[in-house]
Formats: sequence, C-alpha cells, structure tokens
Amino acid sequence: MTNDALGRLTALLAPDMQATNQAILARMDSPVSLIPQLAAHLVAAGGKRLRPLLTLATAKLCGYQGERHIQLAACVEFIHTATLLHDDVVDESTLRRGYASANAVFGNKASVLVGDFLFARAFQLMVEDGSLDVLRILCAASATIAEGEVLQLTTQNDLSTTEDKYFEVIRGKTAALFAAACEVGGVIAGRSAEDCAALYQFGMDLGMAFQLVDDALDYSAVQAELGKTVGDDFREGKLTYPVLVAIAAAQGEEQEFWTRTIEQGEQTEADLPAALELIKKHDATARTIARAEQFIDSACAALQGFPESEMRTALIDVARYTTARRF
Amino acid sequence: MTNDALGRLTALLAPDMQATNQAILARMDSPVSLIPQLAAHLVAAGGKRLRPLLTLATAKLCGYQGERHIQLAACVEFIHTATLLHDDVVDESTLRRGYASANAVFGNKASVLVGDFLFARAFQLMVEDGSLDVLRILCAASATIAEGEVLQLTTQNDLSTTEDKYFEVIRGKTAALFAAACEVGGVIAGRSAEDCAALYQFGMDLGMAFQLVDDALDYSAVQAELGKTVGDDFREGKLTYPVLVAIAAAQGEEQEFWTRTIEQGEQTEADLPAALELIKKHDATARTIARAEQFIDSACAALQGFPESEMRTALIDVARYTTARRF
Repeated sequence: MTNDALGRLTALLAPDMQATNQAILARMDSPVSLIPQLAAHLVAAGGKRLRPLLTLATAKLCGYQGERHIQLAACVEFIHTATLLHDDVVDESTLRRGYASANAVFGNKASVLVGDFLFARAFQLMVEDGSLDVLRILCAASATIAEGEVLQLTTQNDLSTTEDKYFEVIRGKTAALFAAACEVGGVIAGRSAEDCAALYQFGMDLGMAFQLVDDALDYSAVQAELGKTVGDDFREGKLTYPVLVAIAAAQGEEQEFWTRTIEQGEQTEADLPAALELIKKHDATARTIARAEQFIDSACAALQGFPESEMRTALIDVARYTTARRF
Repeated sequence: MTNDALGRLTALLAPDMQATNQAILARMDSPVSLIPQLAAHLVAAGGKRLRPLLTLATAKLCGYQGERHIQLAACVEFIHTATLLHDDVVDESTLRRGYASANAVFGNKASVLVGDFLFARAFQLMVEDGSLDVLRILCAASATIAEGEVLQLTTQNDLSTTEDKYFEVIRGKTAALFAAACEVGGVIAGRSAEDCAALYQFGMDLGMAFQLVDDALDYSAVQAELGKTVGDDFREGKLTYPVLVAIAAAQGEEQEFWTRTIEQGEQTEADLPAALELIKKHDATARTIARAEQFIDSACAALQGFPESEMRTALIDVARYTTARRF
C-alpha cells in the first residue's frame, strides 16, 4: 500500500500506536538478555506494524474507549514476530542462499526459541487481559497460521498445486492473523457477533489481497529494476499465484521450464530472468493484482454496515491502496 | 526412574492415561496431513508420558472427580512435544553430528512449524477448558521454558557458568513444566493456594532431580558400556552439573583440557573417553546424583501435607526412584 493511506491511518492512531510500541518494548523484556536483543532485531526495528494497527483501528471504529486494545495490539505483533522468526528458519537445502535474517545473525536455534518466548508472552498478555473470547480468536489464528505454513511446505515444488490450495495456504499463513487482529477490535468494544464477523471478513479479505500483492511483487520487473530482491519464491519453488497463472498458460517448452525449475528445483542463473519473462508474457502479475482487487472489493463491502467515520474511511483507503503498492 | 515405580503409577491411572492418549491422537489431527504425520513421530510413538501422568496423578491425589484432567494432561504433553521438536532444531554448526530426530527426517522447518501448531493447539484446548488460572500457569511455564532454553544457549561453551546459572537453566527448560503439570491437578480440584503451591514445589523439585540425573547419565560409563549414546552434552559444549563439578576440581592440564574441548569446542575422538575419565576421577556423576537426591527429599517433603493415600505413595515412589535410574 502507498505510504499515504497507511500514513494517514497511523497518524489518526498516533498516541495509541506509541503506547503499543512502548508495550511491545516493555513486555518483550526478559532477564535472559539474548531475548530482548534478538527480538529487537525484528520488533524494535519498527516496520509498518500493520497488524497491531488493525486492532487499534477496528477498536476505535467500534467506539471503544478503554485501554485494552493497546496490550492486545502488542499481542498481535508478538504473534506476527514469532511467526517471522520461525518462518526464517532455513533448512539445510536453503542454507546456501544466504539471506540476512535473524537466524543468519543469531543462529536457527536462538530464532526458534525467542519466537517461542514471544508466542508464550503473547498468550500471557492475553491471559492478563482476561477475555476467553480474545484468547479463543488468537489461539485459533495461531494454529491456523502454523497449518498454513505447513501446507505451504507440502505444496512447495508441487506443480499440481491448485488455486484453491494456494488460497488455503495464504489464508492460513497471512490472512488468518489479519482477520483475528480486526475481530479482536470489535470483541473488546462489545460489538454484536454480526459486527465482529464483518470485521473478521474485512481482515481476512485484506490479508488475502496483501499476500497476493506480495507474491506479485516477488516477480515484479519494476522491483528488479529498483534493485529490490525478487525471485525468492521462485528459488524456493513456491507455487504462488503468479506462477500458477503462468503454468496454466504454459505449453511445450514453457511447461518443461517450470517442471525443471520449480518441480525439480534445478535452476541456473539464467532462469530467474527467463521466469520473469514468462510471467510478463502471460500478464501474470497484473492478473494477480486483479485477483487481489476482488478481495479488496469484498473487504470494503464488509465495512459498509459501519456508519461513515474518519476511521472507516482511513481503513477503506488502506485497503484500496494495498493493490497500488509497487515496492 | 525404574520401570517399577513409574509402572505402578501408570497402572493406577490406566483408564485416565488411555483417555489422555486418545485425546492426544484426536486433537493433534489437522487437515494438513504432514502435521499428524510428523507429530506422530514423537507424540503417538509413546514414550513415558511422565508430564501428563503428573497432571492426572495430582488431580486424583486431590480427590478430583471430573474429566478436565484428561484434556489438560494432553495440553501438557503437547507443550512438551512442541519444545522437543524445537529443541531438536540444529544450527549449521551442529548439522554435522547427524543425530536422528524429527528434524532430520522431515527438515528443520517442518519441525518448527509443527511444534508451533502443537503449542497453539495446547492453548486452544486450555481455552476450551475455560480456566484462566490454568491458562496463566501453563502460559507462564511456556515462557519460562523458552527463557531456560535461550539461557542454555548463552551459557554453552562458557566455562565461567556458575552452578546457580545451571540451576536457572534446568529450572526453565525442564522443571517449570513438571511444576505446572502438578499445580494444574490441584487447581482443577479446587484446592487451596497452599496445596497448589505444595504440588508446584513437588513438580519443581522432581523436575530438577530428573534433569540432574539426565545430565549425569550423559557422562555415565555404564550407559556407554550398554551401547547407549553418551557425550551429547560434551560435544555440544553444555555446562551441565557433572562438568561443573569436574571443572571445579580441575588443575593444570585438566583445566586446559576443558578449555580446549568445551570453551573452544576443539574436540578429537579421544576426548570423550578422556572426559569420562575425568568425570569418574572427580566422582562427578555420583555427586550429581547426590545433588538430585536433595531435590527429591524436598519434593517428598512437599507432599507431606497431603493425607496418606495410594496415589501419594505412588508419587513419592516415582520421585524416590528418579535417582535410581541408570539407563
């Protein structure tokens, strides 16, 4: 999404976001100094904080006046950070690629264990908050995230992966936490099940679109020209939407190309440019963005039941601009 | 512990243990088939199930008549299994040693993610149970486990590690879950804070002794003669109690030996036998077992407030025989 829409939402929530950042720093502390040290590598470094922002925004959208959204937004960020730490753990097979993640700096094991700590700490904060409904939502999301990540592992290098399976993967690994983050805002505001379900739907659709765009950007020629990393998904043999589009349109030599590079994982340096060429030829990133836009339409529709407000406009703008981000 | 004492406790709780095993199998299921598949590698394979057994036993000790202990015992086992899966994740540096763990069969990443799933699932089961007190106890234990594991990482290869620091490590990585597993039994039976604290203490001391014995066995000549693996801790440069004893007694060449092998991690094939020799010379495993016996005395004392019963005797026997196990 462009900095403009996200910037406006962040500005609207500035004091709450600042309080959330303080809660994050205060509660990721431990007498075991490697924990805050490693967590800081990801958490304290900043980032967009999109997920906690959604909890803050939906709480305010629902007229919530208390302070519980701060701590719960911190929980959401801890869960996200834990999954990032665990997601970066590399297998023997991927060690060669050498990207710079927490595990590269601190080692796999430290990344895994600090992720576990943040995960457990998130649940401790929820227990402090004391709502079994909130716990239910975020525990279920956590299990679904793990399921999505495992499903992604099992579809990796599998050319027979269907669009449905891909959507199941990204629903788990990405959209489930967006959905939970939004639903929690409604729950603490004491909104009806119907309103909470609408917020859940908004988050779910936004998350699906967000991941689709992410997957499109990994094959974006514009990104490559700007010197950004592209092709991570290609190198890992991930069956993302753009690749599914290109594979569906492939004939003869193109089919052989995808079988060799994705299914058999045999890649040379010339293969990424060739893949980008095929993606372009079949208009695969544009079609991925178009699919994301359908999810955004659904997301915006989910908020129609809420009365017009500055917060609703800001949330819809953030959603609308998701598909506009190009880098 | 000998099979006799543990066997008697297991027999006393046979129907509950069977129900717990069924709950474990039923609740580790997922539409993502790799999850039950990998979890089965550890969970379904059996093992002693010592931790869930403690929850079942303490609940019965407290006269608990309901069914909640079954599901909570399954939670305890899921948390334990998740930590095992994550504990086995190897760093680049340890990949060479090639031991046969889930991560060796399914890859690091799958082990991490399935561990996350089991962890989240455990919390889902606790939310179903609906007790914030139980959630508080097991969330805190989970955070403490992670802290203990990270602390262990930071003390690895550090010859200046103190006995206190070692106890802090094993309190976290092992004893915290034993303590929580026992406390939960009292909590669901509605016992007083004093009784619950006594059960917590019993579990904590038992866990400390259990880990001390484990650490002694890793340098046990008897184990080596029986063809069991010894020296894992030595190869990883872990500062366990037997090594701390041997280092404290070391002079001149012996000091140089530990500095080279543990601190600098420079080991040849001749070093493990040499280490076992030094451990024997300084009576280090016997002194480790003796330290464990002090914890067992404390554990048994903690149960004195509970009236005599078959279950109390069985628990005390299990504790007493902890230090008798030799393989």
